[in-house]
Amino acid sequence: MKLYTFDSEPNPRRVNLFLAWKGIEIPKQQVDLRGGEQFGAAFRTANPRCTVPVLELDDGTVLCDAIAICWYLERLFPQRPLFGSEPLTQARVFSWDAYLTSEAFLPAADALRNRHEAFKDRAVPGPEPVAQIPELEARGRQRVQRFHRHLDDHLEGREYVAGDQLTLADFDTLVVIDFTARIKEPVPVELARVHAWYRRITALLPPG
Amino acid sequence: MKLYTFDSEPNPRRVNLFLAWKGIEIPKQQVDLRGGEQFGAAFRTANPRCTVPVLELDDGTVLCDAIAICWYLERLFPQRPLFGSEPLTQARVFSWDAYLTSEAFLPAADALRNRHEAFKDRAVPGPEPVAQIPELEARGRQRVQRFHRHLDDHLEGREYVAGDQLTLADFDTLVVIDFTARIKEPVPVELARVHAWYRRITALLPPG
Repeated sequence: MKLYTFDSEPNPRRVNLFLAWKGIEIPKQQVDLRGGEQFGAAFRTANPRCTVPVLELDDGTVLCDAIAICWYLERLFPQRPLFGSEPLTQARVFSWDAYLTSEAFLPAADALRNRHEAFKDRAVPGPEPVAQIPELEARGRQRVQRFHRHLDDHLEGREYVAGDQLTLADFDTLVVIDFTARIKEPVPVELARVHAWYRRITALLPPG
Repeated sequence: MKLYTFDSEPNPRRVNLFLAWKGIEIPKQQVDLRGGEQFGAAFRTANPRCTVPVLELDDGTVLCDAIAICWYLERLFPQRPLFGSEPLTQARVFSWDAYLTSEAFLPAADALRNRHEAFKDRAVPGPEPVAQIPELEARGRQRVQRFHRHLDDHLEGREYVAGDQLTLADFDTLVVIDFTARIKEPVPVELARVHAWYRRITALLPPG
């Protein structure tokens, strides 16, 4: 197996935290997203969508989304489970992933990619040009702020995001929270439950 | 268990096709999205995000996303599996769901909700007002067209979307294709593989 990644970016980081927690080592190949390597012929053969992470199996099969890569590896390496073992816990992890993607990650990406000069005509990931829509920055920020408030409500009486145990949903949320801070939308100080949860999860992370 | 739904809408329909294929009957409660029932106090208690489908378990636990509801029911009712049984097939279904949501369903919803008068100040699902951004209609259509072409490429040499067997990914894609037709972005005639696949999957659907 080989993992195509670009370690500093949010979606690759989700897989990296998962691997680190489980103690799995997979050969990695960095794809320099800042230098445009994802659009080069070599990487496009692996993933025509030009995104990372991508897990390439020994027979050439590729898996292209963080949640799918993590599920596949969870089945192969069941130690230190991060989807729980009960159907309900697993369903909650998948539900949270869908929610987090549409209500937090994509809006944060909208805010970044529709404003920053570096993403001119690349407002959406992929090889085809997509023009920026500056109004999407404000909408993205509004939605990120709503997500922060909703997360704080959600954490009332909960130690973890998806139930009574640590799951991938906690790591994924941590990655998204760091991403929202990067676009200058940190979690407001008064959302104390989010801050307490963040410290709790960060303390569990393996070093590095 | 009880399923909150609004049968004519895409995400509820994903769950409905899944249930029909497996022959599962679950008591349903229609939530009239056109009449705004999703914002009423009764439904908001079940799902503060004000979206359907929602599966409510007997102990009051709720699951709020189509992919999570289907996974939970697949584990409870394993007959006529729609996620395959191998880790790789399951991972492909999850991967396709993530791709389909971000590259087809949400762009189609953007095109609809940012133009249509009925969605004024409701450009994003949920209880908080979000103003329309008319430019998103064109971007949404551009992305839907890109998705149609990509799907046609993807189906080269494939009978089913996520591998060599029928899975939820086929039903989900069918629902999204019907949704894109509804916003007047039907699949172009020349994308013959998509049309052949669509006829194949439609022929498998239970009546009704």
